[in-house]
Amino acid sequence: MSKPNILLIGTGGVGTIVAYGIHYVGKSNLSVVVRRDYQKVSKDGWQIDSCDYGQIKGWKPDNIYPTVEAAAEAQPVFDYVIITTKNLPDVTKVEELAAPVITPEKTTVILMQNGFDIGRPFIAKYPKNVCISGVSHIGSHNHGGAIKQTQKDKSLISYFVNPNLSTEYQEAKTKEFISLYSNENNNCTYFADAKWYRYRKLVYNATLNTVAALTGVDTGRLDLSGGLAALSIPAMREVISVAKADGVELPEDVINSVVHSDDGDWFSPSMLVDVRKGNPIELEVILGNLLVVAKELGVVTPTLTILYELLKVVQYRLKEGKGYFTVPEKRPISDKFYK
Amino acid sequence: MSKPNILLIGTGGVGTIVAYGIHYVGKSNLSVVVRRDYQKVSKDGWQIDSCDYGQIKGWKPDNIYPTVEAAAEAQPVFDYVIITTKNLPDVTKVEELAAPVITPEKTTVILMQNGFDIGRPFIAKYPKNVCISGVSHIGSHNHGGAIKQTQKDKSLISYFVNPNLSTEYQEAKTKEFISLYSNENNNCTYFADAKWYRYRKLVYNATLNTVAALTGVDTGRLDLSGGLAALSIPAMREVISVAKADGVELPEDVINSVVHSDDGDWFSPSMLVDVRKGNPIELEVILGNLLVVAKELGVVTPTLTILYELLKVVQYRLKEGKGYFTVPEKRPISDKFYK
Repeated sequence: MSKPNILLIGTGGVGTIVAYGIHYVGKSNLSVVVRRDYQKVSKDGWQIDSCDYGQIKGWKPDNIYPTVEAAAEAQPVFDYVIITTKNLPDVTKVEELAAPVITPEKTTVILMQNGFDIGRPFIAKYPKNVCISGVSHIGSHNHGGAIKQTQKDKSLISYFVNPNLSTEYQEAKTKEFISLYSNENNNCTYFADAKWYRYRKLVYNATLNTVAALTGVDTGRLDLSGGLAALSIPAMREVISVAKADGVELPEDVINSVVHSDDGDWFSPSMLVDVRKGNPIELEVILGNLLVVAKELGVVTPTLTILYELLKVVQYRLKEGKGYFTVPEKRPISDKFYK
Repeated sequence: MSKPNILLIGTGGVGTIVAYGIHYVGKSNLSVVVRRDYQKVSKDGWQIDSCDYGQIKGWKPDNIYPTVEAAAEAQPVFDYVIITTKNLPDVTKVEELAAPVITPEKTTVILMQNGFDIGRPFIAKYPKNVCISGVSHIGSHNHGGAIKQTQKDKSLISYFVNPNLSTEYQEAKTKEFISLYSNENNNCTYFADAKWYRYRKLVYNATLNTVAALTGVDTGRLDLSGGLAALSIPAMREVISVAKADGVELPEDVINSVVHSDDGDWFSPSMLVDVRKGNPIELEVILGNLLVVAKELGVVTPTLTILYELLKVVQYRLKEGKGYFTVPEKRPISDKFYK
């Protein structure tokens, strides 16, 4: 049997270490799509300073492509497509970005990305493909082709339940992927229930991450200022209610565990870091998708809904700042009657 | 009859033009308290470039004091004390700041400040003094003793109803104050109902000002991004409900008037300007006082309450930025159990 073809899209700090881990295992034919750093990396490879793998100079996978389209032209079929981009469906829909390299009924997609219910658009578009969930806990940053990994690559791999495929098939594909990636230097484990785990992560991300991003403080100051008690904890209760209505029982002490997870640190969560840098935030996959499910299930989420609406305005500002659109010099006058 | 003694506290852009207007009328003995610019102004006076009064070089009132205490020591009784400072009761309570110059049952206080229900702490502390409300519409800025007034001094003068005093007495004092200040260059008018007018202002300030401050966009972008419809207009309906429960009927088209008041402008409201400059915001008098009244009247304000709690966290950050307090280098660990 020939080696499976793997394509990884999104060679940031996380994606490059995932790619290197797969290369290290050596059981697949590995290609990557590199957009921003293509010129440099296709010539010199990556310089990797990794707490898992040590110092690696000039590393290259089997193939490097500048675009998804170039990868699709070069190879007829990918067995696995791993997506490790930032997850901004309001900017780029990954199921469309990856479309040229996904063979229906064949390619398994691995979403190693933040967010909740992110398998839904993939399964809708590719009803007979397996869609794997990868939740990565890693500290790694890409400085123009130089990767600095400071925190071990720990990942939990599950699948987003696709009702058109058998449990056995989805589980087998997920474990096969793990066998191509897991090695003695990383910590990659199978986790049966992607939905449970993604709800569990939301108890933090939809509540502390969002309020910190809106108010501009780390989670320590959020506690001291009263925002934790007045906003984030009520929001956590709303996440737990949605989960419960969706058949997911989170642990009784989940709020306590989440609040204490930053103990001792003035920790700035990812969305706050993005706002400070002027980067668009992963709002739709962290909060938007949850509110879609809450609405479907008829669960009221007053705090989360207002946080979402406020952050949509922040996202508008961040996108304008990045030049995604411009407004006219003179504000247009609306003749709408407001009541 | 000797001229009445007037003291003005807060010689910013607005306060200095108010003081000059009173000097221009010439019917009172005018003193001012100047804190930051005392050295310069007590020597050279103010340089005023005013759209109402023209160019004035080296203007000085009758007396200039560096502190409220110095004013109190110099003169036994002030008939009028005008307060034109920024209104930050969570930083400085103006009824305490002004205490040394207020003679019970004698001094009339004029609050030319932003905010809602701001007479309450004065009337509680001075139950037999008249408390006048001045709402100023003016564009004027102080650049270290150089005043640049670009927009006409238009003010509406009323009184905060003090149930311990007769209507006739309060109205007479209010009109007497107007006679000391109104002149052919400014536009100072009596307005019967301070409460109504302050509610009317809140329809803008509690809703557009607050959401703009939280999201970092002007009112034009707030409209285009959807925040106006999703957040500010529901918040306006809450202000109108509180007003109604408080016996104040706002006009039926108030929401439409408020939304269209910035037509054609990418307008940044005051609280957003403060956040951008890193200055504390007038949160308590714009939103906090309203929520106190809403609670007393049993009116639910879900949107305004969340906006307030979020802005309290922002205020914490702004105060820390100004050095009002510091946090320890290592975040303290709480042993609280959260649920």
